[in-house]
Amino acid sequence: MTISMYQASIPTFTRHLNILVDILTKGAAHAEAKKIDPTVFINSRLAPDMFALAKQVQIVSDTSKGASARLAQVEPPSYEDTETTFPQLIERAKKTIAWLETLKPEQIDGGEEREVSWKTRTATKTMKGQPYLFQHALPNLFFHVSMVYAILRHNGVELGKGDYLGKL
Amino acid sequence: MTISMYQASIPTFTRHLNILVDILTKGAAHAEAKKIDPTVFINSRLAPDMFALAKQVQIVSDTSKGASARLAQVEPPSYEDTETTFPQLIERAKKTIAWLETLKPEQIDGGEEREVSWKTRTATKTMKGQPYLFQHALPNLFFHVSMVYAILRHNGVELGKGDYLGKL
Repeated sequence: MTISMYQASIPTFTRHLNILVDILTKGAAHAEAKKIDPTVFINSRLAPDMFALAKQVQIVSDTSKGASARLAQVEPPSYEDTETTFPQLIERAKKTIAWLETLKPEQIDGGEEREVSWKTRTATKTMKGQPYLFQHALPNLFFHVSMVYAILRHNGVELGKGDYLGKL
Repeated sequence: MTISMYQASIPTFTRHLNILVDILTKGAAHAEAKKIDPTVFINSRLAPDMFALAKQVQIVSDTSKGASARLAQVEPPSYEDTETTFPQLIERAKKTIAWLETLKPEQIDGGEEREVSWKTRTATKTMKGQPYLFQHALPNLFFHVSMVYAILRHNGVELGKGDYLGKL
């Protein structure tokens, strides 16, 4: 037995998007319980030239749908990056999950050697599907979920490693 | 074509351990250039109850060798967690890589359905190899590399996302 490209990608993305929803839900509850303006958390960042929480969530969404779309050779939905509240960010994650769940294994399986391309700010990158998934898409997914977690932890939200790993 | 367990695990661990070496090397260079005591970075953490940089590096090492050993059904080497300097932490990452490179694909391939067990502070967990890799080992790997990156960025070290993703 081996691992299919679908198994390695879509369930991993949806699992961590669901975990992101739970983390954001705890952030919102903390803000409410402590009577802190939620925008303090939404606009918080770990360094002046790092992205704030809202953008980190949007990138988790974009990485998940963009990478999955490239692997499936379809067009991803386009979302406008207008979220400014916890409920809106949670909704962004949930609609990303809903779209990922429309993808079928047969659209993605067999794409290990297929080339995917994407634009960065300065260039167009091309990689084969499998290294793209393991060297770019998954590292990005986990990075940005980790940053959301770290921004909230840095601001005193009571989260633990189990919230990042989810129920095993 | 599909993905083998070996391909999904060992090269992913070694790639990000090498990236960790590069990130730590930049941290050390920054401390030297700015004449900042390197222990300021080594002992820095993002929240009072999160681990400092040194421990984050040790956990990247432990996650990589522990998960790989479980998947290969061998004993991992035991390291003492005595590192307190950038060169020592870099050495820790490098010796972890060297050990990972001794593992052969045939020790790990076929282990998707094999059960792995590990102890947490409070319980013994058991999972099959494939979900263990995608739901526990890889998320942990990327989390702790991300925390090292974030701690250094939070302290002003000039790093960019490309340093975390590595050369693609």
